[in-house]
Amino acid sequence: MTTTETTVKMILDRWNASIKNFGDLLNSLTDEQLQKEIAPKRNRGVYLIGHLIAVHDLMIPLLDMGEKLYPNLQQSFFELPDKAVAEIPSAKELRECWIKHCEWLRQKFESLKPEQWFDKHTVVSDEDFAKEPHRNKLNIIVTRTSHLQYHTGQFVLLK
Amino acid sequence: MTTTETTVKMILDRWNASIKNFGDLLNSLTDEQLQKEIAPKRNRGVYLIGHLIAVHDLMIPLLDMGEKLYPNLQQSFFELPDKAVAEIPSAKELRECWIKHCEWLRQKFESLKPEQWFDKHTVVSDEDFAKEPHRNKLNIIVTRTSHLQYHTGQFVLLK
Repeated sequence: MTTTETTVKMILDRWNASIKNFGDLLNSLTDEQLQKEIAPKRNRGVYLIGHLIAVHDLMIPLLDMGEKLYPNLQQSFFELPDKAVAEIPSAKELRECWIKHCEWLRQKFESLKPEQWFDKHTVVSDEDFAKEPHRNKLNIIVTRTSHLQYHTGQFVLLK
Repeated sequence: MTTTETTVKMILDRWNASIKNFGDLLNSLTDEQLQKEIAPKRNRGVYLIGHLIAVHDLMIPLLDMGEKLYPNLQQSFFELPDKAVAEIPSAKELRECWIKHCEWLRQKFESLKPEQWFDKHTVVSDEDFAKEPHRNKLNIIVTRTSHLQYHTGQFVLLK
């Protein structure tokens, strides 16, 4: 196994385990629990699910994998805070989006060769990337795994 | 920059940014706020600080860098849940431990050459490591960064 292969495995394993952990938690909660706030006057469970899908959706163009799957979620779950928009998708709809989104990403991620993860992402110029090779696609997964874990620590409070 | 150097930079950058983020949050909270629970009937702020120090302390022997700095914190903050032990260190003492511990780890981490991060950690056998080279020291940082982020998402609720 090369260093490149080992590295990609480490980082994708952590991403996949974090996705599974959040998904297991989601399955363990009822739709009613998802309507609750994680703590008094804080985000609701449904907001956190939508927020994670919206953030993961933004990775798609960043990783040069195409267009966002659910651009309609950006305003309610990324640009605006919870409760700013009166009508948001139901818990049932958000559960379906979560599952489809995770599966879509899984297939795309598996199609990349290990060395392709070290290619630049789409918002860094060739010139900057030559000087800063850590601004690659794999680093997007590193930072988004952190983000997912941060909100999973909050989501678990609904249990 | 080699792939090894790029990878180590990506993962240590994420660890260092996560440590800084938690430290900045800690500095923004009063000792009184740290005595509060992150949500009703959940862990207190002081417990989370002690828990993170205890978990980071367990990394030291795992990374073959010596002995734990604060073994006395293991029982109250790792083996037992919050409020199981009546007397725990004060918020002031925990703040000092946090700062010293982060600085100690920072110096140790900087002293390792990039390729040394791909050496095996201490609880995997040579035989297993030959088959599973991802069970290296750097992967300990990957998983502990996830853990730190998970609890940071909770700690921020004290604000």
